[in-house]
Amino acid sequence: MEIPALRWLDPPDGPAIALLDQTRLPAVEAVVTCADVPTLVDAIRRLVVRGAPMLGVAGAFGVALAAYRGDDVPAAAVAIENARPTAVNLGWGVRRALGAYQRARQEHSQDPERVAARAVVAEARSIAAQDAAASAAMARHGLALVPPDARVLTHCNTGALVSGGEGTAFAVILAAHRAGRLAKLWIDETRPLLQGARLTTYEARRAGLPHAVLADSAAASLLAAGAVDLILTGADRIAADGSVANKVGTYGLAVLARHHRVPFVVVAPVSTIDLDTPDGAAIEVEHRPAEEVTSLAGVPLAPAGTPAYNPAFDVTPPALITAIVTEQGVAKPPAAGTLRVLTAGSSNADGPVAAAYVERWGS
Amino acid sequence: MEIPALRWLDPPDGPAIALLDQTRLPAVEAVVTCADVPTLVDAIRRLVVRGAPMLGVAGAFGVALAAYRGDDVPAAAVAIENARPTAVNLGWGVRRALGAYQRARQEHSQDPERVAARAVVAEARSIAAQDAAASAAMARHGLALVPPDARVLTHCNTGALVSGGEGTAFAVILAAHRAGRLAKLWIDETRPLLQGARLTTYEARRAGLPHAVLADSAAASLLAAGAVDLILTGADRIAADGSVANKVGTYGLAVLARHHRVPFVVVAPVSTIDLDTPDGAAIEVEHRPAEEVTSLAGVPLAPAGTPAYNPAFDVTPPALITAIVTEQGVAKPPAAGTLRVLTAGSSNADGPVAAAYVERWGS
Repeated sequence: MEIPALRWLDPPDGPAIALLDQTRLPAVEAVVTCADVPTLVDAIRRLVVRGAPMLGVAGAFGVALAAYRGDDVPAAAVAIENARPTAVNLGWGVRRALGAYQRARQEHSQDPERVAARAVVAEARSIAAQDAAASAAMARHGLALVPPDARVLTHCNTGALVSGGEGTAFAVILAAHRAGRLAKLWIDETRPLLQGARLTTYEARRAGLPHAVLADSAAASLLAAGAVDLILTGADRIAADGSVANKVGTYGLAVLARHHRVPFVVVAPVSTIDLDTPDGAAIEVEHRPAEEVTSLAGVPLAPAGTPAYNPAFDVTPPALITAIVTEQGVAKPPAAGTLRVLTAGSSNADGPVAAAYVERWGS
Repeated sequence: MEIPALRWLDPPDGPAIALLDQTRLPAVEAVVTCADVPTLVDAIRRLVVRGAPMLGVAGAFGVALAAYRGDDVPAAAVAIENARPTAVNLGWGVRRALGAYQRARQEHSQDPERVAARAVVAEARSIAAQDAAASAAMARHGLALVPPDARVLTHCNTGALVSGGEGTAFAVILAAHRAGRLAKLWIDETRPLLQGARLTTYEARRAGLPHAVLADSAAASLLAAGAVDLILTGADRIAADGSVANKVGTYGLAVLARHHRVPFVVVAPVSTIDLDTPDGAAIEVEHRPAEEVTSLAGVPLAPAGTPAYNPAFDVTPPALITAIVTEQGVAKPPAAGTLRVLTAGSSNADGPVAAAYVERWGS
């Protein structure tokens, strides 16, 4: 991306986090600068910055912001982690940053706050760099699942706007395009906030992909027409049983994919896997304000005061998922052989998590 | 409805058809007056007037307009019938009106044009009155399928705005409410044109129904949560094999209903049944402009020029349909016993059609 979704500004320009305002794309490329934690928490809640991997990066830089400002860092970490409940990466990034902060303070008796603040920035940068490397690895592993002349359907937005790298599902799609295998990218508009129509089309256009947008409810007729070879989505939290929480609409697509015998593949870094959440029923799903459904850019779509059911996410059970692509390999339940592939590549800090995950899911 | 969706204006106020502009509801209650056939055809194309039964009424009055004006009536009939391809009722209403016109001209040697024009208006009024009676009968038959404390999910708009009476699926919902059986009405917003969010909420509010609107893609999670007892939709064309063309998104709901073992019930007058269309594959589905998906009320939702897949309808195969409620009874494939109920009530002009339909579908 020429316009990064998130930039850290050191003093004297900061300390601050500069966020590309994803609520205003593609019409306006505006930046929201967060110079304190409440501003960042508000930006996360309003979806100025969004997407599971990028929330991990943003959370870690939020801890850096608190450390630089001399805030109560553990309290700030809790506030950031609680900004949104569903994406596990947010809490994961916050806790990694908090760990780096606490270690640095213990290890340095001279000017520990300044040293710790720098250590947190370094940790946040490391998370972003690992995320970029993970994107590349997910793209490589995912490409193996893309057939020639593939017509791929995707939901929501999973590209460079949500990642230190090229994203999750979108990184696989880009790899397929570069390998000459992408015949068409079908993009669900992804109501109510239209991340597909606004953001994925924006990224698809910049990358020169053959693409078209559709109302979410039109995906069923595309599948019935045999016009989809593969569905690729991201994930916001993957429970220990393999249930996947992702943008609302994902579960319905998975049911349709099964009905039409089309592979349904989830692409997510292992940081999205949460062994502390045993199953899909235990995943907390964020419910958002009715106004996101009943109005759009100030235009009322329904009579004033109409109540709305507006979950931000839904949960797809593992039985409907063909494969989960991670940076460590591809998990194909319940094939133990392919699950081993995932553990074999466990060379980074997340290896034990992935291994434990595979052990549970593979059983 | 205090504000009727369609009113015929005799001379000297007309001849004209006054249409409540459904594209501007609920924000504005404006009337579009069609004093010639091209204006009516444009209004039908732009969905100023819409919904299968109401298109039959509008088509018939369109023929009356041509007759009053001294236009080439058969040519006008063709133009009206071709305004939109999917709803069979439009052509059915036009042909009934044209038949009345031609019979009256043959039977009257004195001032045949004026007599024929009056005969067409009478025929159109008769279609509207039959539609009102059919609504009441559908409501009665459909109510038998609604359990106590029912949480009903519906898609698009099927009430008084699309009917000479209280509508199709919405008439059943109103009957359930009056019988004290409606615990909740879930209303799919129905992208891209938001007939659910704009029109069904408007009618639900006026009728005092407990209701909430949702993004179409959130219906799957409602079903997964066990919060839906029954899905009720209308139909735009029912093929001889029982395939149902209806607003895009209907088919996906039917797949989800089957996955969750929730009854999926279609409510439509027998005029929606088209024996000349043998099966779902033979139904012509209208594809509409990309701009309906990529912009809303002048607000761009996607980068300018983004291509869109925008079918107005989809087709649900009979295997996914629990029952079709008509004014003549309920067809439950493949239960021959209940299909006979449908033929037993064949006392109006459509009886033979229904009987033939039942015979084919029941076989």
